Amino acid sequence: MLAHGSSNASWSSAFEQMTSTLRTQNPDAELAFMELCEPSLQAVVKAGVAEGYKAFKVLPLFLARGRHLKKDVPLMIEQLLSEYAVSIELLAPIGEHPELRSAIEKIVGNTLAN
Amino acid sequence: MLAHGSSNASWSSAFEQMTSTLRTQNPDAELAFMELCEPSLQAVVKAGVAEGYKAFKVLPLFLARGRHLKKDVPLMIEQLLSEYAVSIELLAPIGEHPELRSAIEKIVGNTLAN
Repeated sequence: MLAHGSSNASWSSAFEQMTSTLRTQNPDAELAFMELCEPSLQAVVKAGVAEGYKAFKVLPLFLARGRHLKKDVPLMIEQLLSEYAVSIELLAPIGEHPELRSAIEKIVGNTLAN
Repeated sequence: MLAHGSSNASWSSAFEQMTSTLRTQNPDAELAFMELCEPSLQAVVKAGVAEGYKAFKVLPLFLARGRHLKKDVPLMIEQLLSEYAVSIELLAPIGEHPELRSAIEKIVGNTLAN
């Protein structure tokens, strides 16, 4: 899972907490940050390669595709593919999944009802 | 609803599409962007004031609280409160709602299962 990153620590701790919950069901899931927080995508792939992983899926914890997912992250992945003999698949961001859209609709509905 | 903004148009169009769906149930919901896209929070509040609205709730379409929600957005709101005789409440970002956490957990689970 790839999150954006922030200079404020409450950002990374929210994603770390989420990952820790997720890992009870999905022990292979690792959290990486695109910028400003550690670990980077580069560091996570490097560590995975050292453990023998050959195929990586990058699930962006982003609500939509902006410049980062259109340009910056594909470039990072291209660079990693030139360094390691692995496959790295960039998946659709979570914001494009219908489950997330429905959750947002529910939250907005509840918020405006209060 | 307040989204981040991006220099890439696919970002704003994703949020515009989401808003258009949401407005069928919640006609008072308006979309604003923190930066890089239009309309700004300032523009939406100004338009709301002109239509007679006195109370605004800002629901951040953010996955967590980073620098933007800790510092930049509160400053924007402070500035708006000094300009208009209205109330503006900054709500918790959608990422802190349990519905959104569950949706993310489902998406990660499905992604790793494939």
